[in-house]
Amino acid sequence: MVQTRKVLDVLDGETVFPPPVWLMRQAGRYLPEYRRTRKAAGSFLDLCYTPDLAVEVTLQPIRRFGFDAAILFSDILVVPDALDRDVRFEEGRGPLMKPIDAAGIAMLDGSNLLNHLAPVLETVKRLRAGLPDETALLGFCGAPWTVATYMIAGHGTPDQAPARLFAYREPAAFDMLLDLLADLSAEYLCAQIEAGADAVQIFDSWAGVLGKSEFQRFCVGPTRKIIAAVRSKHPQARIIAFAKGAGPLLTDYRRETGATAIGLDWTVPLSFARELQAGGPVQGNLDPMRVVAGGKALDEGVDAIVEALGNGPLIFNLGHGITPQADPDHVTRLVQRLRSL
Amino acid sequence: MVQTRKVLDVLDGETVFPPPVWLMRQAGRYLPEYRRTRKAAGSFLDLCYTPDLAVEVTLQPIRRFGFDAAILFSDILVVPDALDRDVRFEEGRGPLMKPIDAAGIAMLDGSNLLNHLAPVLETVKRLRAGLPDETALLGFCGAPWTVATYMIAGHGTPDQAPARLFAYREPAAFDMLLDLLADLSAEYLCAQIEAGADAVQIFDSWAGVLGKSEFQRFCVGPTRKIIAAVRSKHPQARIIAFAKGAGPLLTDYRRETGATAIGLDWTVPLSFARELQAGGPVQGNLDPMRVVAGGKALDEGVDAIVEALGNGPLIFNLGHGITPQADPDHVTRLVQRLRSL
Repeated sequence: MVQTRKVLDVLDGETVFPPPVWLMRQAGRYLPEYRRTRKAAGSFLDLCYTPDLAVEVTLQPIRRFGFDAAILFSDILVVPDALDRDVRFEEGRGPLMKPIDAAGIAMLDGSNLLNHLAPVLETVKRLRAGLPDETALLGFCGAPWTVATYMIAGHGTPDQAPARLFAYREPAAFDMLLDLLADLSAEYLCAQIEAGADAVQIFDSWAGVLGKSEFQRFCVGPTRKIIAAVRSKHPQARIIAFAKGAGPLLTDYRRETGATAIGLDWTVPLSFARELQAGGPVQGNLDPMRVVAGGKALDEGVDAIVEALGNGPLIFNLGHGITPQADPDHVTRLVQRLRSL
Repeated sequence: MVQTRKVLDVLDGETVFPPPVWLMRQAGRYLPEYRRTRKAAGSFLDLCYTPDLAVEVTLQPIRRFGFDAAILFSDILVVPDALDRDVRFEEGRGPLMKPIDAAGIAMLDGSNLLNHLAPVLETVKRLRAGLPDETALLGFCGAPWTVATYMIAGHGTPDQAPARLFAYREPAAFDMLLDLLADLSAEYLCAQIEAGADAVQIFDSWAGVLGKSEFQRFCVGPTRKIIAAVRSKHPQARIIAFAKGAGPLLTDYRRETGATAIGLDWTVPLSFARELQAGGPVQGNLDPMRVVAGGKALDEGVDAIVEALGNGPLIFNLGHGITPQADPDHVTRLVQRLRSL
């Protein structure tokens, strides 16, 4: 069968020009149609756990912009939710849950994971059936370090000081938590692949607050473990790993985790991105604020990335999630500019 | 005259062992004596602008720990305060001020700067007279980019999206703001040096949220301008530049700004820190959470830094400010361990 999904061609190491494109958080609050569906749902988690609605919001940006990949609408915190951590999302406050301690970690029970996440897997199944053939379907999970930062603090923080502190104070319990999250993440990603995801992304959004040895232990190790476990069941699994803020550590990160492709945040210099691309496909890395700004700032940002990385395996994306204040017309402009190159 | 201040010896390129030490935010809320003085003052800015009180809190950590340097107690936002931006500090909310726009930038008037900051300069004068001879006195200012992020957003944000967006939308106004802040910062640092500061530090706390070309324009350029302007009046001025989160860009940052020494945050790998030290003195970079944790995490962190950087010009410090929850006894342990090496 001829592969018609450009994103997968890139993940297989090919150079595709113009590069295929999708945007992190492409199904989100910047879209009026998303806001309408969101309003009709009860809580944010209800939206994640109701296949009809989750399919609808996943498809909205595909219909509007024709992105080359759809990403399952869900959240990285469905895993702690499956661990009964009382996860909830409050408007303007971000995610909240019960903070965990060492005793709580020892009692975590992941046996209900796939049962709890069955509606998400159902969403994946319906999506693959409902998407245009040329559109890749991406699943995802949070990386253990990033998920752990929320589990320990009980909420988002700017620098993950609570998790850093916990890791210093309770290294054994912290390792146990990362280990469990790695196992569950692998199980969850395998189930997504079995439900029809063409590729999966591991989000380590808080990798940038760590020193080198902590990055090695908390980010590289668990991510490597996830990837190895997924590949033991699905040897050809395509896996994108995104360690935001990891900067110069990305060279080792790529090599040591075995990720198929690595995501780059907008602070990664394009010269360094080229070096990284010599080792395999890269994804990124437009500053989401350029999409908000539009106009020249947007055009220049798009052009610079394509100029630097377009003659190698590149999936065009943002360097972080698109923000609610982005104008959808600017996204249209981005896609048109990219495809007119 | 023989130089008795070890911090200055290091800034002059010498290797001093054990390395001299001070901690960012060493005069702060983790100290009960600070909290008492803070309570007696009115607002936080009252504390900054009352020489009796500012001298007292600056000296408190010197008395308690015998640090090798005292740093003027003040705040980077006294400069926008001198620009009449209605700066205030509210408990639990951090700094607040009137957000500025392009029209507001065009109307900024810095002519009152040194008049407004006269009490701070008086504090510097009294400090130099009151400190032990072996204790270096450091002045400081915020770097233009970091100060601008607060001026534009009107408050702190986790990723400085408002300032990044403003810079894309209003590049001319943004350059004008950085230019003005660079001029005023240079004037302010010169006045601190003339009042008795032995060295000064430029804090670019939000350098890490920028792409490479923005880092070059918003951080490197204005910091180079400040340093050149200070040196045109004080050719021997010792200037520490601290671009938090700049990672691999620090090599260019050091070379292009002409800083005497560079500060390193805790995410800078020690192997890279050694490379940077080949270019001149470095300062840093213990994770402040290790001070909160204490015990083995603290000892190992101290030892690793000294092992990697102790045989070159090093000022031992944290990789970011000490936090309110740090136990002062852990600071005592840090200093003792360092000095017993």
